[in-house]
Amino acid sequence: MYDAIVVGGGPAGITAGIYLVRANKKVVVFEKEAVGGQIASSPLVNNFPGFPSISGSDLANTFYEQAAALGLPLAIEEVQEIIPGKPITVKTDMCEYQTKTVVIATGSKFRLIGLPNEANLIGKGISFCTSCDGAFFKGKDVAIVGGANTAVTNALYMANLCNKVYVIYRKDKLRGEPILVDNLLKKDNVEVIYKANVKEIIGTDSLEKIILDVDGTTRELEVKGLFPSIGMDAETEVVKGVLNLNESNYVVSEDCSTNVEGIFVAGDCRTKEVRQLTTAVSDGTIAATSAIKYLETYK
Amino acid sequence: MYDAIVVGGGPAGITAGIYLVRANKKVVVFEKEAVGGQIASSPLVNNFPGFPSISGSDLANTFYEQAAALGLPLAIEEVQEIIPGKPITVKTDMCEYQTKTVVIATGSKFRLIGLPNEANLIGKGISFCTSCDGAFFKGKDVAIVGGANTAVTNALYMANLCNKVYVIYRKDKLRGEPILVDNLLKKDNVEVIYKANVKEIIGTDSLEKIILDVDGTTRELEVKGLFPSIGMDAETEVVKGVLNLNESNYVVSEDCSTNVEGIFVAGDCRTKEVRQLTTAVSDGTIAATSAIKYLETYK
Repeated sequence: MYDAIVVGGGPAGITAGIYLVRANKKVVVFEKEAVGGQIASSPLVNNFPGFPSISGSDLANTFYEQAAALGLPLAIEEVQEIIPGKPITVKTDMCEYQTKTVVIATGSKFRLIGLPNEANLIGKGISFCTSCDGAFFKGKDVAIVGGANTAVTNALYMANLCNKVYVIYRKDKLRGEPILVDNLLKKDNVEVIYKANVKEIIGTDSLEKIILDVDGTTRELEVKGLFPSIGMDAETEVVKGVLNLNESNYVVSEDCSTNVEGIFVAGDCRTKEVRQLTTAVSDGTIAATSAIKYLETYK
Repeated sequence: MYDAIVVGGGPAGITAGIYLVRANKKVVVFEKEAVGGQIASSPLVNNFPGFPSISGSDLANTFYEQAAALGLPLAIEEVQEIIPGKPITVKTDMCEYQTKTVVIATGSKFRLIGLPNEANLIGKGISFCTSCDGAFFKGKDVAIVGGANTAVTNALYMANLCNKVYVIYRKDKLRGEPILVDNLLKKDNVEVIYKANVKEIIGTDSLEKIILDVDGTTRELEVKGLFPSIGMDAETEVVKGVLNLNESNYVVSEDCSTNVEGIFVAGDCRTKEVRQLTTAVSDGTIAATSAIKYLETYK
């Protein structure tokens, strides 16, 4: 029987694994695709302390190598079902396991606009996180897609950095917090384009321009950066019906614990304000620390 | 006028600075002694993701170099007074500054037993954090000093790793949570020595043994590791009377905000459960993100 099974091999899951294996717990990390999670697709990271400039995939590699050096087992298996109890049962596409604790670190994914060429240009002009990648567009022209709070916050963030910020929204009124919307509309270098949709994204090695449909007419914008800000999807299918999820499918948690005894949660898949590498590794630490404490009194 | 002044150049403060400067804010970090905070004195860190094995001072250096590369100003000035208001006034030993926001990241310090030789052997057998350094003592004999919850938790953590764990406590009954105390007392490889004080620490390049006074008689223990677990002191003198502190002088905060508008808090100096590098950089991120948001609506 395992002391702990960690579901997800991104920064939160790997960190939880590192803390558990260093505490001499019998632990395995299950990752369904590739180690590193969402960060692995980022071309350049310079806001994770200790790495002045590194690609996301290289950073993911250092996480993996460190885990391996500490003797943390990491298996490519897809977890398909988790059955609470003492012990907890974890079913993967390969086998069925028993474990005393589980750490859910399944992450989340940014929503795409849904256009051809979009996935190709991620990290080559298309980005989802202004506090991660915004600084790379200093002095340039960029577009934000969306009109809810995330889009408005992203637009404000970029307005402080960029020459020009376009906000492209399909409706005729922004939906963000009124005070933030007011401030955004006062910015000289921001243009909100209402009743607009991106219909084409042009560029091969890097983003060159986007083509909009604005209430029936076509408009072209030459922008170096495009931030789709239309939400994220939590990757929590596997714990639906097991853990309490909020209306957006994030695992409800304030301190990395959940509503089920012995199951903890870390990283982007849980309810929280700030989803960054730094907060993910913090969650991994806290979830593992709680699991270790739980194991001390497990009967 | 500054957009933000960060007080403290440890991992939490540097991270806050990195996020603020990347958001194009006018920011400075004031550090009174040396960049890196408490981690700089750690000989070996292998639980911070991305660094399989690095000394604390080298890690602190990478933080510093990254901050410098991003153009984050860092000054060696001691902050002596913070006066809330719009703007906030920050007085250092060098000058008086105005700023819209402040991030307090002044850290905390582990309490020493207070013996000669103790400071010399920190990182050479003496350590304060089991989840940081415990794994380095796998299979060895160690001693924990203290009898409250931290000591009991540390002893349980080490009992899973070590050949033998001594708990040295000056009173005749452990004070930790009853269930944890019960579990500790059941461990075959744990010996609690009551009415005991460490009176001498022996070793030059590394810890060799400790000499106890046990209720009037002398006892020697050959241990490779010694974990004083008698508490920490928050370094919050400068915000006394300005911010709400708890009974142990930590800044009261659940989400890196404080009771004073425009003043945020990050890292070990705030109330929280888990004080680790990972949670410090997370706090720096969250405090900076909150400060950036606050600046969007600052009048």
